[in-house]
Amino acid sequence: MAEEQYIRLAHGGGGQLTGELLEQVILPALGSPQEVGRLTDAATIATKTDKLAFTTDNYVIQPLEFPGGDIGKLAVCGTINDLAVVGAEPKALSLALVLEEGLEIKLLLRVLRSAGEAAAKAGVPIVTGDTKVVEPGGVDGMVINTTGVGELKAGAHLGFEKVSDGDEIVLSGPLGEHALAVMSRREGLSFSSELASDCAAIHSLTRALLDQLGPEVHFMRDPTRGGLAATLVEIATAVKRDIEVKEDSIPVNKTARAAAEMLGLDLLSAANEGKLLAVVQTGSGDRAVEILARYEIADRSAVIGRIAQSSQTPLVEMVTSIGGRRVIQMPYGEELPRIC
Amino acid sequence: MAEEQYIRLAHGGGGQLTGELLEQVILPALGSPQEVGRLTDAATIATKTDKLAFTTDNYVIQPLEFPGGDIGKLAVCGTINDLAVVGAEPKALSLALVLEEGLEIKLLLRVLRSAGEAAAKAGVPIVTGDTKVVEPGGVDGMVINTTGVGELKAGAHLGFEKVSDGDEIVLSGPLGEHALAVMSRREGLSFSSELASDCAAIHSLTRALLDQLGPEVHFMRDPTRGGLAATLVEIATAVKRDIEVKEDSIPVNKTARAAAEMLGLDLLSAANEGKLLAVVQTGSGDRAVEILARYEIADRSAVIGRIAQSSQTPLVEMVTSIGGRRVIQMPYGEELPRIC
Repeated sequence: MAEEQYIRLAHGGGGQLTGELLEQVILPALGSPQEVGRLTDAATIATKTDKLAFTTDNYVIQPLEFPGGDIGKLAVCGTINDLAVVGAEPKALSLALVLEEGLEIKLLLRVLRSAGEAAAKAGVPIVTGDTKVVEPGGVDGMVINTTGVGELKAGAHLGFEKVSDGDEIVLSGPLGEHALAVMSRREGLSFSSELASDCAAIHSLTRALLDQLGPEVHFMRDPTRGGLAATLVEIATAVKRDIEVKEDSIPVNKTARAAAEMLGLDLLSAANEGKLLAVVQTGSGDRAVEILARYEIADRSAVIGRIAQSSQTPLVEMVTSIGGRRVIQMPYGEELPRIC
Repeated sequence: MAEEQYIRLAHGGGGQLTGELLEQVILPALGSPQEVGRLTDAATIATKTDKLAFTTDNYVIQPLEFPGGDIGKLAVCGTINDLAVVGAEPKALSLALVLEEGLEIKLLLRVLRSAGEAAAKAGVPIVTGDTKVVEPGGVDGMVINTTGVGELKAGAHLGFEKVSDGDEIVLSGPLGEHALAVMSRREGLSFSSELASDCAAIHSLTRALLDQLGPEVHFMRDPTRGGLAATLVEIATAVKRDIEVKEDSIPVNKTARAAAEMLGLDLLSAANEGKLLAVVQTGSGDRAVEILARYEIADRSAVIGRIAQSSQTPLVEMVTSIGGRRVIQMPYGEELPRIC
């Protein structure tokens, strides 16, 4: 990063390069302390009486509409999910548009109706917004920013520091459906009819886990950009422990896997938009799966691995179907640009 | 609007067309009620114990750096100001970037340092963020979204419904410095050396007014896109009363006026980024001016007009220097694209 002079697409991919941009350029320039805690999905604000969670996301996806969703639904669900995984009850969203001159108003209407429906379904109102228009060019139709405020749940005691040896790792369903649905549509592959994005609000899942398992839930995250690989490497690095996952236990969508193979992509680092990864206390994994599996969006939940021993050079290892071991690495840059 | 099929630049100008897009397309599509209250600068969220203000803004200005500021300072100050004018104490900001591939990292650093400095000076921390990268094209370097959360001040009782006959209108300084500084730089005019944007956080002004005048302050607004003209027409329409302003009492920056004349622009509808317009109770105007004028950014504050009688077809009228009367209208579309 130090010697680079220009921004590259790969700086936005959610992998190692994004991390370097954030830690070496953005945070120091903003004058912010480089605490690991600042890099979780939402920040905490203490008001006189409440503890609030606060999170923001820009959405730059192409195409704007894809099987299973569109940029509007994605923007609403994504921000709700970032609040949910820090243990907050989402209270309100803002929605700010940058529209490209020439955008078809019918398309704008479809996207906004979809955003409104997703917000209504989730019970989280969009309460404020902004609209700007720019000349025809690279925003490719529109950029949406959604920012969310939530109230931290009293029962939530989450954080990297809660994670300890033997903790179990639970995943709420198969990987990569969002990335592959978008890519298949983009590349005009025939999969596009069978494959739909998993785009969904997961605050019902996080609420159920926290209400029923309380302090047994140690950490949660939605594996979006960079996928499961980025999320696991981030956790391993932050908690200074190895992580072991079992390939056979990771739920798979066969169409997504076939599409990934055809496109030469790794499902482990493909973006998801409606999945929850939770780290729970030793012995609580099966109960977590049982709680999650009652929800349709999480009916294929599974315990996929565990936190192993402390390590100065923490590794994420996958025991493969044939008994081998594969080290899972932080994706470097942008495998799939403009995916969320 | 009804018969239009495509977004035009003018839809983003903050004038009549922006209003139509919002009321006829965006709000109905989102499924939101079309209350006038929703169109103020920030929304209110009630948590269990607190009343919060919540606001969002996208910044798409060209050039990214201009005399008196840059997109980073603008984004921080603009969002602080939107919280300030609804009577909130700004507590925290989010900052989300869309970067264009090829953006020079040195420029990004200057903009972010400027944002960080503005936040530190204002005492409002940037606590969360997001970074996306898009292909080279129309975002022209970068788009910044800032979203802010504030606590509503106990002494604030603001709203269109508080505005009544005889209320006085106070403006904290000369008009159009932001728009003209940006346009002069863009057009390469020689004014660019003499004219600087008024870009500043005005929460110290709103705080002082509320602390010292309490319920005598009826309404506040920062006249940004669409300028003083848009703000006054919006107030007149919402409170169903005529408004009268006196041209001679409006503070003028002579260089801005000269630049406006050369560029064929109207100072009344030019954007400001560090000005406060306050509507105060009859007889409180002079005290408001006295309170504001202690601050360097408001040392040319003045009472510029008053709320007149009720009207079914509310008009904003300006008594000109030579004693004539001019009706001030809502700017139609985009006089100055990409100005904030």
